[in-house]
Amino acid sequence: MTFDTTIPGVSELLERYKRNETTPKEVVQQVYYQLATEDTNAWIATRDKADVLDEAEALASVSIDEKPLYGIPFAVKDNIDYSELPTSAGCPAYTYKPDESAPVVEKLLDAGALLIGKTNMDQFATGLVGTRSPYGVCKNVFNSDFISGGSSSGSAVAVATGHVSFALGTDTAGSGRVPAALNGLIGLKPTRGVLSNSGVVPGCASLSCVSVLAHTIDDAVRVEQIAAGYDQTDQYSRHSKGTFESTTPAVETLRIGVPAEDDLEFYQNKEAKQQFESVVDDLTASFSSVERIDFSIFEEASDLLYNGPWVAERLTNVGEFIKEHPDDIDITVRGIIRDGEMYSASDAFDAFHRLERLRKDAAVIFEDIDALVVPTIGTIYTIEGEQLHPLEINSELGYYTNFVNLLDLSAVSVPTGKYTAGPTFSVSVIGEAFDDLQIASIGDTLHDRELGK
Amino acid sequence: MTFDTTIPGVSELLERYKRNETTPKEVVQQVYYQLATEDTNAWIATRDKADVLDEAEALASVSIDEKPLYGIPFAVKDNIDYSELPTSAGCPAYTYKPDESAPVVEKLLDAGALLIGKTNMDQFATGLVGTRSPYGVCKNVFNSDFISGGSSSGSAVAVATGHVSFALGTDTAGSGRVPAALNGLIGLKPTRGVLSNSGVVPGCASLSCVSVLAHTIDDAVRVEQIAAGYDQTDQYSRHSKGTFESTTPAVETLRIGVPAEDDLEFYQNKEAKQQFESVVDDLTASFSSVERIDFSIFEEASDLLYNGPWVAERLTNVGEFIKEHPDDIDITVRGIIRDGEMYSASDAFDAFHRLERLRKDAAVIFEDIDALVVPTIGTIYTIEGEQLHPLEINSELGYYTNFVNLLDLSAVSVPTGKYTAGPTFSVSVIGEAFDDLQIASIGDTLHDRELGK
Repeated sequence: MTFDTTIPGVSELLERYKRNETTPKEVVQQVYYQLATEDTNAWIATRDKADVLDEAEALASVSIDEKPLYGIPFAVKDNIDYSELPTSAGCPAYTYKPDESAPVVEKLLDAGALLIGKTNMDQFATGLVGTRSPYGVCKNVFNSDFISGGSSSGSAVAVATGHVSFALGTDTAGSGRVPAALNGLIGLKPTRGVLSNSGVVPGCASLSCVSVLAHTIDDAVRVEQIAAGYDQTDQYSRHSKGTFESTTPAVETLRIGVPAEDDLEFYQNKEAKQQFESVVDDLTASFSSVERIDFSIFEEASDLLYNGPWVAERLTNVGEFIKEHPDDIDITVRGIIRDGEMYSASDAFDAFHRLERLRKDAAVIFEDIDALVVPTIGTIYTIEGEQLHPLEINSELGYYTNFVNLLDLSAVSVPTGKYTAGPTFSVSVIGEAFDDLQIASIGDTLHDRELGK
Repeated sequence: MTFDTTIPGVSELLERYKRNETTPKEVVQQVYYQLATEDTNAWIATRDKADVLDEAEALASVSIDEKPLYGIPFAVKDNIDYSELPTSAGCPAYTYKPDESAPVVEKLLDAGALLIGKTNMDQFATGLVGTRSPYGVCKNVFNSDFISGGSSSGSAVAVATGHVSFALGTDTAGSGRVPAALNGLIGLKPTRGVLSNSGVVPGCASLSCVSVLAHTIDDAVRVEQIAAGYDQTDQYSRHSKGTFESTTPAVETLRIGVPAEDDLEFYQNKEAKQQFESVVDDLTASFSSVERIDFSIFEEASDLLYNGPWVAERLTNVGEFIKEHPDDIDITVRGIIRDGEMYSASDAFDAFHRLERLRKDAAVIFEDIDALVVPTIGTIYTIEGEQLHPLEINSELGYYTNFVNLLDLSAVSVPTGKYTAGPTFSVSVIGEAFDDLQIASIGDTLHDRELGK
C-alpha cells in the first residue's frame, strides 16, 4: 500500500479491487492521507475518516458485482445536501443542516460509493470562475496562476488532483463543464430533469442540472445512469425512459455541426484557435460529415441568461437571504443576483416567448446535425486577470455554454489538448434533450484520440 | 329555399348538400338574410356578401368529397386574423389590417369552408363574461337577461343563433368553454399548441388556444382536425402526431374523476347542483368507475392565473398600447391587465416553480382516472348582476376552467341539461395533453344522453 499515489477513476479503481490490489479501507486511508496535506481549497467540509472507514469496512461482506460503485470515493459540490454535513452553497452565513441527503447522493451511496465530503464553489453557483468563494480561490490543477473555472470548482479540483474518483457538480450556465474543461476532466451535463434536483440549492431552479465530473466518458456515464431517476418531489424531474436504453448509431454515421468561422470566439488566443481547428480535422476524419452552422441563435439564447430575467430566478432561492445579509455575500455575486430585481414579470414573459422562438429555430438546426461541437471555453485566464474584469471574463467563459440549458440541450465537455501554460483545451459535444448516450459516444471518440488510443 | 330557417351544424349541412337539398350559394343567401336583421351583437365585421357568393360559386366545380368543409359557413373571433378584414381584438383603437390570414383560417378555407366574418369578444380576450366590448353586450341565446359568457361571446352566439355552422374562438382561462356552456354548444379546447396561434392576438401567448364552438362533438372534432398542424412560425406550436390517429378505448372501460363533494361550488344554485348530480349518475351508469378526487390542486392552479404573474403576460401583447391609449380601453379590462405591472420577474419564477409542482401533482391524479368531469360553470348570471360585480363573477366563472391551460390539459364543454331560466347547464370533460379524441368520445356519450339518443 502506497500513500503517495492519487486516487484513480471509477473503472480503474474497480479493476484494482477485482484484482485484489487494494481494498476500500486502504483507499479511504489513502484519500485522508492526501486530504491531510491538501492546499487546493477544493474542500469546504469532509466527513470523519472513521465514519467513512466504517462504510468501507461494511463493503467487505458485499460482492463487488452487486455494487456498481463499490468502494469508490467521491465528492459533492456544497450546494447538494448530504445528511451528515452542512450545506453552505459557498456562503458561511447561509449554511444549514439538511434533514436528509439529496436523492442523487442516496443513489450513489446505495451503489456502494463512499462520500468523502463537500466541495468549494462559486457562491450560490453564481459564476464560471472558481474565485467567488470565502473558502478560498480554487486554482487550476495544471498551473496555479490560472483559474480553475467554476462554479463547480472544488469538484473539478478534487477529482483532477486525485482526491476522489469522481464528483458531482451542478450546471446552469456551464458550471459543470467549464471547470472540467480547464482541469483535464470529462464534464457531463445531463439532459435537464434526468437527475433529481431535490436537495440541491440550484442556480436557477428551472434550468440547473446536477452534473458529473470524472476522468473518462465511461466513468461519467456510469455515474449518470446510477444517479438518474424520476423523482416526484422535484417539480422539474423528467422521465428518462429510453435515454439509457437506446443503442446509439455507429459514430462514423453521425453528422457534426461546428460554428461558422465568423461565429467562433477565441479572444485573441491563437493556441485555442489552433486546438479547435485540429479538433475539426479530427471530426472530419471520424464522422460522416462536418457542417458549419449559424451560431447566432445560440449566441442570442446565451445573452438571455445573464442579460435577461433569468437572473431574477436566482432571487427566488436566495433573494430574501441576500437582502437580510448583504454584508455576508460575495460582492460580485450580490451584484449579479440583485440585478434580477430590475426585471418585471412582463420582461420575463417577453423573454420566454423569445426563448421558445429560439428553441424552435435550434430544433431546425438539429434536424441536419446529430451533435454540435464547440470549444467549451474560447481561452484561458489567470486568476489575477479574472479579478480585474470579473463580469467580462465570466461572460466570455459562458459564450459556448450559457445557451445549453435554456435550449434544453445535453452536453459533455471533453479535453482534447493542452495549452502550453498548462490548462487543458476542451470541446463540448452538444445534443438535443435525451441524447446523453449519443453525445457521450461522440465525446469518447474525441477523448480516445486525445489519449492517443 | 327558405330564408327563415337557421343554419345547421357541419355534418347536417354536408348531408343536405349530398342530398342536393340546398347549395352553398343558397346557404350564403340564407346567412346574409339573417345577418340583415340580426340584433345579437355577435358580429364585429362581416364580409361582402358578393365575395362569399363568389367562393360558394367556385365550389360548384368541386366535388363535395374533396372538401371536408364544403360550403360550410363559419365565423372567427375578432382576435384571429383574416386577410380581407381588420382585426380589432374587441378594441376599435387597436384595430389593424393583417397582411395574411392566420394559418388556422387558411386551413379551414382550403377545406371548402366559407368565412362570413369576425365575431364580438371581451376586449383583448380578457373576461369570461361577454359584456366587456364596445361593440355591445352579447346576450344569452336562450334568455337575453343572462350573460352569454365570454370572451368568445360572439362566436358562441353566432353559432347558437344559427348564423353559421361553427366558429373559432380562443381559450386561455375558459374563453372558449364558458360561452359554449351557456349557449347550448360544444366548446372544444384542444391540447395547447395543436392548433397554431400565429395570426392570433392571444390572451396569454404561452397558454392560449384556438378553440372550436359547434353543435356536436363530431362537428367540433372534424374542425379541430382540419385546423390542426405543426407551425414553425408559432413558437408554442407542438407536433400533434398521434393525437388524431389513436383509437380511443371503449367508453365503458374508462375511469372518470369528479371533484369531492366539498370542492364543488354552485354559488347557492340548487338547480346547478341537481344538474351535476344527475350527470354523476349518468357517468356512474356509463363508465367503468367514478371516483371523487381532491380538487384543491386544480383550485390552486386556477388562482395562479388571475391572482398571479400571468396577468403580466397580457402586458407583453397590449401593454404598450394600453399605456398609450388608456381612454380607449374597457375600464375593467384595463384594470386587470395593468395589475400585471405589480409583478416582478422573481414573482413570475416563483409562480412557475409552484405551477410545475402542481403539474406533477395533477399527473398523479391522472394516473388513476382517464378524465375529470366538472361543471363548466357553477351557476348562471344576469347581465345586470354581472355589471355590479364584474371581478367576483369572472372569478366564479373560471373556477372550473382557469386551471386547464396552465396544467397543460385538454377539455371539451358539453351541454347536459337546461336551467329553467333558459341557459344550458354544461359539464367539461378534461383530459391530459393529447387526449383530445378520448375526451371528445366521453363528451359524446354525455351529449347523446342529453339529446335522448
